[in-house]
Amino acid sequence: MQHKLRIFSGSSNPVLTEKICDMLGAELGSVKLSRFKSGEIYVNYEESIRNCDVFLVQSLSHPINELFVELLVMIDAAKRASARTVNIIVPYYGYARQERKSAPREPITAKMVADVLTTAGANRVITVDLHAPAIQGFFNIPVDHLTALDLISGHLKSLQIDRPVIVSPDAGRASTAEKLANHLDSPFAIMIKKRPAHNESVITHVIGDVKGRTPIIIEDLIDTGSTIVNVVEGLKERGASEAIVCATHGLFSGDALQRLDHPHIREIVVTDSIAIPEARPENLHILTIAPMLARATRIIIEGGSIATLFKDAGV
Amino acid sequence: MQHKLRIFSGSSNPVLTEKICDMLGAELGSVKLSRFKSGEIYVNYEESIRNCDVFLVQSLSHPINELFVELLVMIDAAKRASARTVNIIVPYYGYARQERKSAPREPITAKMVADVLTTAGANRVITVDLHAPAIQGFFNIPVDHLTALDLISGHLKSLQIDRPVIVSPDAGRASTAEKLANHLDSPFAIMIKKRPAHNESVITHVIGDVKGRTPIIIEDLIDTGSTIVNVVEGLKERGASEAIVCATHGLFSGDALQRLDHPHIREIVVTDSIAIPEARPENLHILTIAPMLARATRIIIEGGSIATLFKDAGV
Amino acid sequence: MQHKLRIFSGSSNPVLTEKICDMLGAELGSVKLSRFKSGEIYVNYEESIRNCDVFLVQSLSHPINELFVELLVMIDAAKRASARTVNIIVPYYGYARQERKSAPREPITAKMVADVLTTAGANRVITVDLHAPAIQGFFNIPVDHLTALDLISGHLKSLQIDRPVIVSPDAGRASTAEKLANHLDSPFAIMIKKRPAHNESVITHVIGDVKGRTPIIIEDLIDTGSTIVNVVEGLKERGASEAIVCATHGLFSGDALQRLDHPHIREIVVTDSIAIPEARPENLHILTIAPMLARATRIIIEGGSIATLFKDAGV
Amino acid sequence: MQHKLRIFSGSSNPVLTEKICDMLGAELGSVKLSRFKSGEIYVNYEESIRNCDVFLVQSLSHPINELFVELLVMIDAAKRASARTVNIIVPYYGYARQERKSAPREPITAKMVADVLTTAGANRVITVDLHAPAIQGFFNIPVDHLTALDLISGHLKSLQIDRPVIVSPDAGRASTAEKLANHLDSPFAIMIKKRPAHNESVITHVIGDVKGRTPIIIEDLIDTGSTIVNVVEGLKERGASEAIVCATHGLFSGDALQRLDHPHIREIVVTDSIAIPEARPENLHILTIAPMLARATRIIIEGGSIATLFKDAGV
Amino acid sequence: MQHKLRIFSGSSNPVLTEKICDMLGAELGSVKLSRFKSGEIYVNYEESIRNCDVFLVQSLSHPINELFVELLVMIDAAKRASARTVNIIVPYYGYARQERKSAPREPITAKMVADVLTTAGANRVITVDLHAPAIQGFFNIPVDHLTALDLISGHLKSLQIDRPVIVSPDAGRASTAEKLANHLDSPFAIMIKKRPAHNESVITHVIGDVKGRTPIIIEDLIDTGSTIVNVVEGLKERGASEAIVCATHGLFSGDALQRLDHPHIREIVVTDSIAIPEARPENLHILTIAPMLARATRIIIEGGSIATLFKDAGV
Amino acid sequence: MQHKLRIFSGSSNPVLTEKICDMLGAELGSVKLSRFKSGEIYVNYEESIRNCDVFLVQSLSHPINELFVELLVMIDAAKRASARTVNIIVPYYGYARQERKSAPREPITAKMVADVLTTAGANRVITVDLHAPAIQGFFNIPVDHLTALDLISGHLKSLQIDRPVIVSPDAGRASTAEKLANHLDSPFAIMIKKRPAHNESVITHVIGDVKGRTPIIIEDLIDTGSTIVNVVEGLKERGASEAIVCATHGLFSGDALQRLDHPHIREIVVTDSIAIPEARPENLHILTIAPMLARATRIIIEGGSIATLFKDAGV
Repeated sequence: MQHKLRIFSGSSNPVLTEKICDMLGAELGSVKLSRFKSGEIYVNYEESIRNCDVFLVQSLSHPINELFVELLVMIDAAKRASARTVNIIVPYYGYARQERKSAPREPITAKMVADVLTTAGANRVITVDLHAPAIQGFFNIPVDHLTALDLISGHLKSLQIDRPVIVSPDAGRASTAEKLANHLDSPFAIMIKKRPAHNESVITHVIGDVKGRTPIIIEDLIDTGSTIVNVVEGLKERGASEAIVCATHGLFSGDALQRLDHPHIREIVVTDSIAIPEARPENLHILTIAPMLARATRIIIEGGSIATLFKDAGV
Repeated sequence: MQHKLRIFSGSSNPVLTEKICDMLGAELGSVKLSRFKSGEIYVNYEESIRNCDVFLVQSLSHPINELFVELLVMIDAAKRASARTVNIIVPYYGYARQERKSAPREPITAKMVADVLTTAGANRVITVDLHAPAIQGFFNIPVDHLTALDLISGHLKSLQIDRPVIVSPDAGRASTAEKLANHLDSPFAIMIKKRPAHNESVITHVIGDVKGRTPIIIEDLIDTGSTIVNVVEGLKERGASEAIVCATHGLFSGDALQRLDHPHIREIVVTDSIAIPEARPENLHILTIAPMLARATRIIIEGGSIATLFKDAGV
Repeated sequence: MQHKLRIFSGSSNPVLTEKICDMLGAELGSVKLSRFKSGEIYVNYEESIRNCDVFLVQSLSHPINELFVELLVMIDAAKRASARTVNIIVPYYGYARQERKSAPREPITAKMVADVLTTAGANRVITVDLHAPAIQGFFNIPVDHLTALDLISGHLKSLQIDRPVIVSPDAGRASTAEKLANHLDSPFAIMIKKRPAHNESVITHVIGDVKGRTPIIIEDLIDTGSTIVNVVEGLKERGASEAIVCATHGLFSGDALQRLDHPHIREIVVTDSIAIPEARPENLHILTIAPMLARATRIIIEGGSIATLFKDAGV
Repeated sequence: MQHKLRIFSGSSNPVLTEKICDMLGAELGSVKLSRFKSGEIYVNYEESIRNCDVFLVQSLSHPINELFVELLVMIDAAKRASARTVNIIVPYYGYARQERKSAPREPITAKMVADVLTTAGANRVITVDLHAPAIQGFFNIPVDHLTALDLISGHLKSLQIDRPVIVSPDAGRASTAEKLANHLDSPFAIMIKKRPAHNESVITHVIGDVKGRTPIIIEDLIDTGSTIVNVVEGLKERGASEAIVCATHGLFSGDALQRLDHPHIREIVVTDSIAIPEARPENLHILTIAPMLARATRIIIEGGSIATLFKDAGV
Repeated sequence: MQHKLRIFSGSSNPVLTEKICDMLGAELGSVKLSRFKSGEIYVNYEESIRNCDVFLVQSLSHPINELFVELLVMIDAAKRASARTVNIIVPYYGYARQERKSAPREPITAKMVADVLTTAGANRVITVDLHAPAIQGFFNIPVDHLTALDLISGHLKSLQIDRPVIVSPDAGRASTAEKLANHLDSPFAIMIKKRPAHNESVITHVIGDVKGRTPIIIEDLIDTGSTIVNVVEGLKERGASEAIVCATHGLFSGDALQRLDHPHIREIVVTDSIAIPEARPENLHILTIAPMLARATRIIIEGGSIATLFKDAGV
Repeated sequence: MQHKLRIFSGSSNPVLTEKICDMLGAELGSVKLSRFKSGEIYVNYEESIRNCDVFLVQSLSHPINELFVELLVMIDAAKRASARTVNIIVPYYGYARQERKSAPREPITAKMVADVLTTAGANRVITVDLHAPAIQGFFNIPVDHLTALDLISGHLKSLQIDRPVIVSPDAGRASTAEKLANHLDSPFAIMIKKRPAHNESVITHVIGDVKGRTPIIIEDLIDTGSTIVNVVEGLKERGASEAIVCATHGLFSGDALQRLDHPHIREIVVTDSIAIPEARPENLHILTIAPMLARATRIIIEGGSIATLFKDAGV
């Protein structure tokens, strides 16, 4: 009995899926994904997947609820079609920012998403740079948690930036900045903010030295970009040079791309975990995570250690 | 210890929820439902629901995936806020037409929806006229399956229609028509069709006598309305009078309402299980299921038999 | 590591199991099935099944509760004996007519049966012509739902019946008749009935044209045969010729076989999904589903598409 | 909200259920239990049980598989009818002798039965003198394990037996005999046997002194009675007087009652955990466990300690 | 039916449990907790808890594995004794620092602990200042996550510290410091460290201004104290005054208490979430969380909002 | 795809694990097991185990709670590291004596242990001579229950004991003695005791003939040894020769080894299921179960029947 590998793409990011297939020398699987007039999703695998190791690629990006339900339906159909295993590659795991109650009577949506994916029939998750690493523990199925930090750090080194300073835009996320600072052997700084409301923030001060330095702002994701712009302007006021903005996930909600086409931003660096529209600002640089996902897929199928993909052990 | 009843509305049908509250003399619960720029849903109950019997009202109508995920998030938040029980009133249960595999490698989405609602934390379901009654069995939590057939049949009686014939637009759904024919003591007829593709149908012939009669077409739901229009025109060709079209659920996808503003349709009868836009054709008659849902809620809280709500035992 | 296929027969239908084994070139597995004086079932596999793909063949026919519990005990013993997978071939899935509540405070026994088989340790179900296709969705383990309709339709074609009419004995099951009518390119008719009580029915009228035609009555199963006899007599009164009665499952409860030895029934066509006693009426024709089950088993083991077994996609 | 107590009887032992109701001053609940011609069980509660604490009384005696499936169907129907809790009183828990693998590739049917009752929806079990006390641990729902030992021991005291000796018919069950010996302050003896096959046994010798004494043979259940007769005859050969035979459960399979109408058996003492046919030998004495079950039910509903029902703490 | 509240203490912190009982006016429940010579734990509730709401108080402090298994056994015994609900108050949730994989092939022990507590039968968790708030999401039972930050901040205000600066000893935990800084309206600083190995750390620099200020070091827990001492000495070198060290949980592993009896530490502030030995340094100040836990327990029983206990909404 | 076998040792018995590896020609896997100062266990597999069949060897001996939690953490880490299967070899299954409630409001800890091991992620258990065979049924994952009785009986035969008598120290465990008596074709006797308290026992009399015979006392485990010493002395008083004491598991809690260095004990025979300290009495004879466990492991991996390992079918 031979277990075949079959890779299928959800609607969110077919270009990335194709790249993964190319690197694996695998043909992209054929699945019909459509919507009825009522908005109901319809899924149909157009080839037998019986006894196959099925990999479904879907980022939970915009429109997140459509893509999430589509993934659930794809999992259900694969399970009922007697796939041997149903593996989901979720390069961007949406709802990860709702990973705890920050006010009473809130949901923990990131956990609900994990439970529901498992109930639908997923057997394994492959994902990249979760907003909170504890989300791995929301699953009892194996999670391969990859990171694009090496990729980003390699790109930054190639830029040979003069007098850099790594900047965490947020006290709560200082440890990623600290990690990147270690990679690049740079100093780092933290922006101290107040959050009067959701999606809003006011910088009160900066701790660490930024004057005359090129700030490298590091985030896991860029959403509306307004926090970033605040940070960039706060840095400028404190005498910093033009900033480089880095994030694994370029969500770019609303008019984020226009907002980030900003005179004090020298370059925006993201990966292709989320499909980015063709109309892009010139300062946007996209790194591809396809080789990393392809290598991880091969290791999952053939055995071996995912950890060998990364410089840092902490995956 | 007193268990309080708290009723909250999802985004799908707040008017219906308010009517239910009015009838129960209960205040509508206050819940914040919003969306971030990224499209992520945010839910927050604005009052304590600890130890309460919480009822959430949400039809899985258009936009179905948004409403479905919203309901999941509402359930998760209620469970984590220590609600004593989380009861979901789903007047229209979407995805019910995907209740079996009609081709290989299809999902059974109606089951996935049931499993996922249970995983999120629902303790009971109240619903109306499921497309397939076996969907009750998709749940292991109690399901109170109500029917609007008495309501529709009462309205039809009040119209004092001359020479009616109950028409099933489909061989597969003839038993509802048979039931209504028994209620009204009328003859009935069935349209025989071919379905060359999804959302399409061609009538080949009619079995039963329709000439010179007023057809009462009965369906569980009206979706795009194109099947209905085909049936109406097929009946007209066979000498029938102007039709009355009845369904529990008025989904009216796409331009259904324009399509159904048709010279051979005398009246369209639906319930308010799904919110219907203000711009409605004149021949649309809406019956309210709020009293039925309010009575069912009271029985669930106070004990008693839901069956007393219906003439027919078969609930 | 080689996964061996082992097939065992429950008490219900050893002849069918042997035929399946013959077609697969597999030896029938040896299992001790006995009953203590107390009526308790005892099961013991008489050969190692460790790491094997075990297939258990058991129809839930008469005596249904004995056979059902025997299957549960066989599954438990196989699971505890370290079978790699426990696959159950249930050619006739009993209790399928209790697939929804048709009165308040009824069970949904078809769902309980599905849950309980899964709890005992079944990993996959192979079954034929379920009374309600939604029962597939009662399982979260894969279900291969086969149909004998091609087999029956092939046999009917070979009979070269003059002026046939496909008859659905029941409004609620008209869609199977519609499907067979499409296969045979025949007209069809529906019997309209009232059900004053369980196991009873009174025909009120027929819709569709039957006069001078040979009715082909199609059902999923024949139970006591009294409905069939009613239908046959109703058709005779309306001028039809002698009928051909077809069903996948010949349950033949009570004195059904005597009852169906009826002057207006030309032939009864069933499959061997249920073992039929040797004393059979002459007009009984039995088609074997063993080749179909053997091919399905091979596909499950070797991979491939079950859909290739059928003309109709809808499996 | 008031939670009402409703008690229903399965087919196995309606007389016992009525006695329990009498003692509780509760009316016996009305449930329809019938069988279709196909042998399928049909259950329908004939009164609302919504929000009630439902108690179902069913011994898993002869015909065990019928009674077991009937209980499953009753549980399923009660759960779906929105009972608040489903409590099962199983005075005799059949299949308890299959509580471990005594040969390879056997089932552990007692565990399967426990799992399946829980899956169907039981919330609590009340049972009496399990064959193996570890079966309590097969459940994760609460089990109230009662014992009839006080009842039996009280009866034996009233007999004022001269020179008694408690006899364990089996090395494996010596601890119950030891317990009864402590209750009655008597010596005890053990029969040493070989079991060449299931349902057979050959006594090789007796350890302990029986000569000139009245043996009181204690068992949890009497099945076919042939072991008992062997023991009685073995005791007679060794000079013992006529025996008294005690067991909680009088299963009396096959022609056990005739077999036990034996000149060397002075009296047979059992409880009414299992319904016993009217044609009984004169030496059969039946003790009723109804008061004990009624008191346990009251404690479960009202709170308190079941342990107060017994002299021995070990319940 | 009256549901009684019964509170029992595990071995970890009986003094705290007694304080909670005092505040609730409830009697401490009587439970036997002992160990056999083999080290096996034995638990026995010495009073009926049938139908009671049982609260078990157990911190997962030293010796953590003993206390964890003891809690599991207590939960199992309570469940099997028919407690209505089993609520666990875990003031200090050990293993919380293993809440994600920081190297490949590590466990996520905090999740395993959550799953296992749920499997044993816990229905609700009440805990205080989890190391990572996402651990709430590791549970699907309700979690009431309390915080001692108000308590600590109130105490600090009462000290009227001159020129304070809040210090986060770690970039990864800066957000708690930021929160406390907001409470006290103080500046804050972060220590930047390298961790060459587990339980070790080297400070490389400080970001933020500490010179001539009184550092208030805030942590969720104090373990061996060596990090704290490093931080204090690093602050001293940079010109800071004597420090105040605050943490919710005083774990004080090994010789932490001696180590923290340090000339540059003015005061150590912890709560009584963990029992602290009598031999304490003079500069140790213990705040009690008993009133907070008592109020939370009352709210859980009587209904209401836990959020009212805190100034900050984020619980 | 090749599934590799990897064997790892917990802290309890590394010598036994090494012997198993030697016999299988397998290299012992490398896993880091350590404890933080706080007592928390840390586990890290130092090689990839992705897709491997992992076997973890851990006896639940002293210190039982540490070893139990260590095993749970090892299982969790193996599951999350994508092991194909996690098989646990638990030569001595601790807590097995708490397999039922012997007093009200006790736990059934042996079941809790089984549930919790399964929740953590174990897929199969291999164990030896469970205190109660019904514990097999506490698991729904496959259990391979091995016995050392052949090993012990073979050793006893080699001793060529003159006039032996097999002695059961306890009425409740007479069946093991009966089994050994059959193996050795010897008479047997039972000690009758009272248990005034836990860990205590008083012999009241002996049934069976022991005078002038060499008693072979057989137990599943030796704990504190005080029961054994009581039995030995009781036998001596009744004229028996010096005893041979046999048990599968030598737990030797507290000062058991000193206590058993007793003039009336000729030899103590145990296996290496539990690691025994180097300082041993001269009369202690240790048999190794490594060959049996190695053969079982090979059969599990390669297929075949575990039953072939034993003379007795009952495994």
